[in-house]
Amino acid sequence: MTYCVAVLLEAGMVFASDSRTHAGVDDFASFTKMTVFERAGDRVLVLLSSGSLAGTQAVISLLRQQADAGDGRPNVWTARTMFDVMELVSDAVRAIGQRDAPHLEACGGSFNASLLVGGQIKGEPPRLFRLYAEGNFIEAGDLTPFLQTGEAKYGKPIIDRVIHPAISLTEATKCVLVSFDSTMRSNLSVGMPIDLLVYERDTLAVTYRRRFDEGDLYFHNLREAWGTGVRSVFRELPELDW
Amino acid sequence: MTYCVAVLLEAGMVFASDSRTHAGVDDFASFTKMTVFERAGDRVLVLLSSGSLAGTQAVISLLRQQADAGDGRPNVWTARTMFDVMELVSDAVRAIGQRDAPHLEACGGSFNASLLVGGQIKGEPPRLFRLYAEGNFIEAGDLTPFLQTGEAKYGKPIIDRVIHPAISLTEATKCVLVSFDSTMRSNLSVGMPIDLLVYERDTLAVTYRRRFDEGDLYFHNLREAWGTGVRSVFRELPELDW
Repeated sequence: MTYCVAVLLEAGMVFASDSRTHAGVDDFASFTKMTVFERAGDRVLVLLSSGSLAGTQAVISLLRQQADAGDGRPNVWTARTMFDVMELVSDAVRAIGQRDAPHLEACGGSFNASLLVGGQIKGEPPRLFRLYAEGNFIEAGDLTPFLQTGEAKYGKPIIDRVIHPAISLTEATKCVLVSFDSTMRSNLSVGMPIDLLVYERDTLAVTYRRRFDEGDLYFHNLREAWGTGVRSVFRELPELDW
Repeated sequence: MTYCVAVLLEAGMVFASDSRTHAGVDDFASFTKMTVFERAGDRVLVLLSSGSLAGTQAVISLLRQQADAGDGRPNVWTARTMFDVMELVSDAVRAIGQRDAPHLEACGGSFNASLLVGGQIKGEPPRLFRLYAEGNFIEAGDLTPFLQTGEAKYGKPIIDRVIHPAISLTEATKCVLVSFDSTMRSNLSVGMPIDLLVYERDTLAVTYRRRFDEGDLYFHNLREAWGTGVRSVFRELPELDW
């Protein structure tokens, strides 16, 4: 499994992904699920991938190869808008799917790659999308300013209650990390390190990027403070009179 | 879908279940999923059911019919221990499954009934079980003092952080209700009214029982206070320095 979340705020964006991959509980490993294309002053694109690792790595490799080719064909460096980026990502997912799906299905498996893609290209506001394995995609908006993939349920309630478009990047970052803590507590197939990226609107450069590994002191303190805080909120909640 | 949760504490037990049933999004209705067998001074048994309504209602009807028969055969009133109760419930689930499963499977469906069963019988401590559709069952313990069925993921993190065996019935009740609020926010197939039952250890009678319907003032206030409290905890959490 996987857990990825991306948040679109008035102030910018927050992205986070876990790093656990597994083929059964007896075979797990760490691979980053975050890919960044950055050209300062022009664009920042962040891709968070979930699904089978072979599929998502092939999609990213294809996008990178196209970007490096310099053969005049459209790629993530030349796309004029985030929508154009999404069409490129969609084409890459469909190309890999077409190649792999028949072989996976022959063995009872299926092609499965889904991505969160967000960022900003000069001339546009920041935009955030979720692309499905079929290659179609949706865009986040004011009413739903965050998107998740993978094991999304454990970490959703806290995002639901805290995230709204006007919240600060700082608050949103803490919320995203608590959401990861809640998820890792219940699903062994979501695990550290967590890759975090914060993007401040209109800066067209990555604002902050950090990896949280097992034993990370900040993450530990955050988890403790959250647990203590929550228990104290419970003590203050109105009581039933019986 | 359904959401049921039951908590086993040193001080007693808390049970809660939603009431929504549906056959597709265009056909939903309300049926209680909580059944209580109470004989003051002797036993309190609480059953929370999830799965197909026809199956779980048949299981409960069968248990009631046996209990009312007075034919000397074992039933929930005569069972000496909670383990004996579980064998009766298990037998009922298997009997209904044997009757219904072939017909459901012929139409591409399957028999699906799972129950949380808890309570106390004179001479025993309170005990809590989860019974699967196959009729086998597990018992809650110190390390995992709560059990859930149905749409369990949204509401689990808050229970994970707050519930431990030494917590008071009052705190546990608030936590269970917040867990329901988190779940209903994300899953339309879990809905009010919520049936709540609190049992104080060794009293051998129901301590408190209440139904929370749409617009319930206490539930509304709890939700608001929780949202406000959580947001204030976030403001106090340590910040990343970037």
